[in-house]
Amino acid sequence: MSQLLEQLIDAFRVLPGVGQKSAQRMAYHVLERERGGGQRLADTLASAIERIGHCERCRDFSETPVCPVCASASRDAHQLCAVESPADRLAIEQATGYRGLYFVLQGRLSPLDGIGPRELGLDRLAARLAEGEVQELIIATNPTVEGEATAHYLAQLARQHRVRPSRLAHGVPLGGELEYVDRGTLSHAFGSRTEVQS
Amino acid sequence: MSQLLEQLIDAFRVLPGVGQKSAQRMAYHVLERERGGGQRLADTLASAIERIGHCERCRDFSETPVCPVCASASRDAHQLCAVESPADRLAIEQATGYRGLYFVLQGRLSPLDGIGPRELGLDRLAARLAEGEVQELIIATNPTVEGEATAHYLAQLARQHRVRPSRLAHGVPLGGELEYVDRGTLSHAFGSRTEVQS
Repeated sequence: MSQLLEQLIDAFRVLPGVGQKSAQRMAYHVLERERGGGQRLADTLASAIERIGHCERCRDFSETPVCPVCASASRDAHQLCAVESPADRLAIEQATGYRGLYFVLQGRLSPLDGIGPRELGLDRLAARLAEGEVQELIIATNPTVEGEATAHYLAQLARQHRVRPSRLAHGVPLGGELEYVDRGTLSHAFGSRTEVQS
Repeated sequence: MSQLLEQLIDAFRVLPGVGQKSAQRMAYHVLERERGGGQRLADTLASAIERIGHCERCRDFSETPVCPVCASASRDAHQLCAVESPADRLAIEQATGYRGLYFVLQGRLSPLDGIGPRELGLDRLAARLAEGEVQELIIATNPTVEGEATAHYLAQLARQHRVRPSRLAHGVPLGGELEYVDRGTLSHAFGSRTEVQS
């Protein structure tokens, strides 16, 4: 096999969830049927790596030092919402009418993978909370074990700076059927039932 | 979201089996944790697209007009083995002691996807068989419906040029347990049983 082809297959393995077999399939597919798209991928990837950095304020990906949302004067600086990834931030932005600011952790606490408070930029978050402008820290990490641990840590951090921490409500998803909801969620929703207002 | 980031996510979708979600995950992963690897991928991909073409003889990927295997004087030009992909060729090369030449279809007949004899370079294969040097065409397409249809077509082509077609043996895999072999394979292996030589 051509050495360059081997290098290409190897290079594809840097992508998440891509092993030897998928990398091979990707290399063959691009070379055989998608040279134009492959060239576009190579170009876009190179310029994205060169030009996309992190917003100084929220750590989200940004082509400018401060991202448009953080720079906007129309957002409410009293509320800060901590999310694990830019995708989570986008989901909240699209689904809710939230007008506050964000802080993107770019991960979750995971000591085994070497991801601690420093890797999540929590020193910067602490400095931001210490500024005194933020009144509520909305913790929107994922409801996984690591996400919960991260949420716990963030809540403590908020309290240290006299900022009110809050979490997204857990419970039965709208439109879901009880029969198919997992036991943990159902148990939690049952335990956290709220009184029906008349 | 940054426009360049959107373009990057879009560009990743050119890869096989990569939808919107995976593309997003790839873009975030590369930008957040693998900038070095991402840069290498961009560079290798660009130079592979520029430098890797097809071997004039066997249609495998090659950086030279004729690939090293086809150019080798030590291979037996009387045998030609037709495979669907470079990966199949590699598997045969590594597992068997085959010393003949190859013809890489880069696909299989699939009219619904617009892949016919011309896309598989069968005109070139026919010309090669017509040269008269090849005595046996070993058909090693995959045992799928489309692979079988391709095999049937190739066998006819071989007979037209008075070349002997042959197929890989089907049956129970070595080391497999009968209990777990699929019914089609078991039925075929039973029907094609061979006499035990004393």
